[in-house]
Amino acid sequence: MRAIVIHEAKDLRIEETTLAEPGRGEVQIRLAAGGICGSDLHYYNHGGFGAIRLKEPMILGHEVSGYVAALGEDVSDLEIGDLVAVSPSRPCRSCQYCQLGRHNHCENMRFYGSAMPFPHIQGAFREALVADASQCVKADALSAGEAAMAEPLSVCLHATCRAGEMLGKRVLITGSGPIGTLCVLAAKSTGAAEIVVTDLVDSALEFATNVGAGRVINVATDPSALAAYQIGKGYFDVLYECSGAAPALASGIAAMRPRGVVMQLGLGGDMNIPMQALTAKELDLRGSFRFHEEFGMAVNLMQQGIIDVKPLISHTVSFEDAVKGFELANDRSQAMKTQIRFS
Amino acid sequence: MRAIVIHEAKDLRIEETTLAEPGRGEVQIRLAAGGICGSDLHYYNHGGFGAIRLKEPMILGHEVSGYVAALGEDVSDLEIGDLVAVSPSRPCRSCQYCQLGRHNHCENMRFYGSAMPFPHIQGAFREALVADASQCVKADALSAGEAAMAEPLSVCLHATCRAGEMLGKRVLITGSGPIGTLCVLAAKSTGAAEIVVTDLVDSALEFATNVGAGRVINVATDPSALAAYQIGKGYFDVLYECSGAAPALASGIAAMRPRGVVMQLGLGGDMNIPMQALTAKELDLRGSFRFHEEFGMAVNLMQQGIIDVKPLISHTVSFEDAVKGFELANDRSQAMKTQIRFS
Amino acid sequence: MRAIVIHEAKDLRIEETTLAEPGRGEVQIRLAAGGICGSDLHYYNHGGFGAIRLKEPMILGHEVSGYVAALGEDVSDLEIGDLVAVSPSRPCRSCQYCQLGRHNHCENMRFYGSAMPFPHIQGAFREALVADASQCVKADALSAGEAAMAEPLSVCLHATCRAGEMLGKRVLITGSGPIGTLCVLAAKSTGAAEIVVTDLVDSALEFATNVGAGRVINVATDPSALAAYQIGKGYFDVLYECSGAAPALASGIAAMRPRGVVMQLGLGGDMNIPMQALTAKELDLRGSFRFHEEFGMAVNLMQQGIIDVKPLISHTVSFEDAVKGFELANDRSQAMKTQIRFS
Amino acid sequence: MRAIVIHEAKDLRIEETTLAEPGRGEVQIRLAAGGICGSDLHYYNHGGFGAIRLKEPMILGHEVSGYVAALGEDVSDLEIGDLVAVSPSRPCRSCQYCQLGRHNHCENMRFYGSAMPFPHIQGAFREALVADASQCVKADALSAGEAAMAEPLSVCLHATCRAGEMLGKRVLITGSGPIGTLCVLAAKSTGAAEIVVTDLVDSALEFATNVGAGRVINVATDPSALAAYQIGKGYFDVLYECSGAAPALASGIAAMRPRGVVMQLGLGGDMNIPMQALTAKELDLRGSFRFHEEFGMAVNLMQQGIIDVKPLISHTVSFEDAVKGFELANDRSQAMKTQIRFS
Repeated sequence: MRAIVIHEAKDLRIEETTLAEPGRGEVQIRLAAGGICGSDLHYYNHGGFGAIRLKEPMILGHEVSGYVAALGEDVSDLEIGDLVAVSPSRPCRSCQYCQLGRHNHCENMRFYGSAMPFPHIQGAFREALVADASQCVKADALSAGEAAMAEPLSVCLHATCRAGEMLGKRVLITGSGPIGTLCVLAAKSTGAAEIVVTDLVDSALEFATNVGAGRVINVATDPSALAAYQIGKGYFDVLYECSGAAPALASGIAAMRPRGVVMQLGLGGDMNIPMQALTAKELDLRGSFRFHEEFGMAVNLMQQGIIDVKPLISHTVSFEDAVKGFELANDRSQAMKTQIRFS
Repeated sequence: MRAIVIHEAKDLRIEETTLAEPGRGEVQIRLAAGGICGSDLHYYNHGGFGAIRLKEPMILGHEVSGYVAALGEDVSDLEIGDLVAVSPSRPCRSCQYCQLGRHNHCENMRFYGSAMPFPHIQGAFREALVADASQCVKADALSAGEAAMAEPLSVCLHATCRAGEMLGKRVLITGSGPIGTLCVLAAKSTGAAEIVVTDLVDSALEFATNVGAGRVINVATDPSALAAYQIGKGYFDVLYECSGAAPALASGIAAMRPRGVVMQLGLGGDMNIPMQALTAKELDLRGSFRFHEEFGMAVNLMQQGIIDVKPLISHTVSFEDAVKGFELANDRSQAMKTQIRFS
Repeated sequence: MRAIVIHEAKDLRIEETTLAEPGRGEVQIRLAAGGICGSDLHYYNHGGFGAIRLKEPMILGHEVSGYVAALGEDVSDLEIGDLVAVSPSRPCRSCQYCQLGRHNHCENMRFYGSAMPFPHIQGAFREALVADASQCVKADALSAGEAAMAEPLSVCLHATCRAGEMLGKRVLITGSGPIGTLCVLAAKSTGAAEIVVTDLVDSALEFATNVGAGRVINVATDPSALAAYQIGKGYFDVLYECSGAAPALASGIAAMRPRGVVMQLGLGGDMNIPMQALTAKELDLRGSFRFHEEFGMAVNLMQQGIIDVKPLISHTVSFEDAVKGFELANDRSQAMKTQIRFS
Repeated sequence: MRAIVIHEAKDLRIEETTLAEPGRGEVQIRLAAGGICGSDLHYYNHGGFGAIRLKEPMILGHEVSGYVAALGEDVSDLEIGDLVAVSPSRPCRSCQYCQLGRHNHCENMRFYGSAMPFPHIQGAFREALVADASQCVKADALSAGEAAMAEPLSVCLHATCRAGEMLGKRVLITGSGPIGTLCVLAAKSTGAAEIVVTDLVDSALEFATNVGAGRVINVATDPSALAAYQIGKGYFDVLYECSGAAPALASGIAAMRPRGVVMQLGLGGDMNIPMQALTAKELDLRGSFRFHEEFGMAVNLMQQGIIDVKPLISHTVSFEDAVKGFELANDRSQAMKTQIRFS
């Protein structure tokens, strides 16, 4: 069985690895689709990000779907052949945070394809893997590609749940990558009345328009448009900051109404923020990190037709072309979500 | 100018009345459409409800739209000919509750067509009326009938905002009248994943299906279906109680998950409730009463195409046939929302 | 080793029972103090309450403290001789509600001294018991009697956390038993500006005064005083309903301001409630049931001197006099909290 | 009548000014006490702060109490001779934010002694002033000095209400000036179980200890103590950032538990913040700005004895010595709150 292994920046290899038998409560999954995430790209381009660095080779990948190929003991809800979305989040369920229902803060989290903590948690880009049945959500009526979108969609649903009241609200999204555009879908599904998206790249903004943004603004070519829009139309109620760029956050804060909510999803490093404006407007800046119970919700909302992620899957490459897929994903002028087709 | 005046139960008359000139900040409106509400029917059928009784003749009506016919001084946002939804809610903006932003609890509220307090607050079913410009929301791109639905839709949006998190939730609605079916639309617009509606009348439930309920249950003909459904599918997260009937509330409470939210919209009298279940499950039973800032939101959501109320406007009668309209609205086997066409 | 066993109404016996050795993660505790709760009295007086009935003899008791007498393997935080408050709440930590952090809704809860589910969960009124170390909170600097108050205090802290903002609020408490008077302490500790308590028994109200109620009202001898007080001083923001009596809830609802919060702690059966008032005022009626993380908080707040429960421990009887203790606890004209001293 | 007028940095003068007669709904107040606030010191030391600069001479002061000296028409709740706390906050009550109950965000706010907007809003440091009766809260049973503390206490109560659940929580306060130490009192009054305060000045920390901080840390002389404390005792639940200093915020964020709440009160300029930690821990950073309904609450809580501000009034100077008072207030090694005695 083969896997996609990062050795160091720009050294990504397809290698042989071994596959365990499924134990009690586990299933073996033949991978179907895997999406390349921004953090995968960080490992590929830079060998890590911030304090998180590769120390030894690691299998990448955490946005995956597949078909159940074998069942361990005591698995009753799944059958061989089922298409499932596989959650990469594996909390311990016992620590204080798990027991508070905040599994994304698990003290013993093992999240697929993460170089922190060390030893690395191996990822899911392999032809087959053994997972706990509780990580698997049946994805009937979805394509393998859609099922693999459950993970990034969960990130955006989690942020949306944390953002609170959305019905009839005016929403600004800074950063039109996969997370920003999925936030468009999430905000729309909860009744946002108006959605504006900013980015530096026109083609990225086209995807936002295609999934329902009412207005997109290229802040590189039209730097005063956001302020002009806000003056004409009024302040925003909610900001999803998906770029991790301090200037985006600062311009967003300037466009917010008093008591507005700023969801920070973008994982930049330190950021210089206009604290006087934040304080005087009594903004509420909330970090949002991964997800937990939103994973099943993501699959369900796609199944119900409430959220349609298909327009965001811009490219699909074969397993053999995985490295090409990473290069493609790097090109924001072309790609939104690039997925690897495993079989 | 003529108006629709209730004198006592079953004594509804079209009568001449006078029309004032619009003062500063006011506009004159030529009525277009007016929906008959359950409270209008209470006055028509019984001369009132609960402690609220007619003491002298009163013009009915509070769900109305119309065309701006004349402008008072200092009105800048409206023009003659504009179609507007007219809010029947006229809070004082000065009392302690208004100053807290809770205008629906205004101590000096003058709500169109209400027999409480006395002297009666006259209603809006008249060929023309003078309103404050701040009550009027431009309804471009809507029909007059849709614009007149802004009021009951606001009631449901208010309850939905008060209900809190809805994304991915399982929702039960008891009572499939105009409020119950508009709650289907409101819950759908905020991302509810599953909506079940109960009623005693099949034809009323058909409307719920038409606007997006996933399942409807006639509790008269199939009294065990709700419990069976809940056992098979799981508890509900949110209940909108729109019937005002104690058995509906009790069966709803039985079907709720621990920490679920019960929104009480139906205005019955005293109700016997299974308090031990409510306490042990730590349910949150919240009254919801009228609306305030949701009125503009209702118009906006209809304009954006996020909510489509048209399938619920089942009948339209002419001004001259207003009494027939009330009889029609009484017949739940036929009518959902009956509106009067004023011009 | 002896235990206090209820056989049927009014048949309470001290009987021999056996004691297990502490297993891994467990400790053996020599009981020190045990408070008699209202539910203990229901078993003693009536053999149960509502649908919850004794089917076979059961050891009573769930408000207990004791001294660590032996340690099982892998217990590191406790030492022999430690005084501990012992939580009677034993959730499974695995079911969906436990994993959401809502352990009081555990689907497999084993709560000491409860006849539901069957077979009965045996209680803690015994000379010694084996408990999980995680149930035990060190109670240094507290008396054994205070430590045994951690359990009912936790109930009131849980309700207080669920009630939300309390700082500067006007609080009404209906029912001046142990729960009502502990709610006085809980509300005071979170900054309530004014606390009024009602009951039918003057001597019970004296305890409320002693722990900080600003005003007490005997609604039996002065039935119009609450309404008069509310008219003079203004509506209440928060109601703790601790009586389980429908008239108390109804009079409380009448005295609440719009958008007020009603915490229902009293476990009566069905209750007839003035739903029109609840709806029109948009009250928020929240059930509150037991507790979870508040148990450690209760011990901590007593240790810090923030909450002093001592004035509420009105009587202490010896183990041999346990039956007398139950009779005493039945007499609301004398007793507030009656505790049994085990050693 | 004389007033305390700032002309430019370090040019503070006592000057003659005029006094109007009280109009309808107004009262004339003979000033009693006035506290010197950090923003007064900014004008005195630097002629302003951030973008807010003096453009012409301005009367300083916004923390004041006084005696009612004359009543305008239609004032019914006050009598001549009443000691009142005077709120410096004068919102318009009509703009969109006032109508939402968010008066501190009033679009037309006139707040005493503020150089923004221009023309300057004159302050309250004058021998007498005319105020709206609605600004005045009777302060029976308080000293004039305590009554003048209502304003900064309101700032801290507002932040505390916005911080949410406090009962049993572990609280960190960075900055032990008047706002930080009043936050100690506010947090204690709502049931915080543990309060740690940091500052750079030992004498300032002594005041924190005197009003109830359980532990104080001088981060200048003991830079590793906070991290050591957090490791030993555990994360904090709530942070009040009262220093406006980026390093304080950064060290506070490092000591917070996941999902903790950070209240930003300190009004620095731009701040560099560790956004990756904030995001990954899902902290909730909330600006807090001034107050509104908390002003009456502040007076009430002092009257009830729930909050005692007296230990924080370190110095009182005569009106004639006002400039000395400003110099004294500048000296953090001596002064906590310096007040001017007007009569």
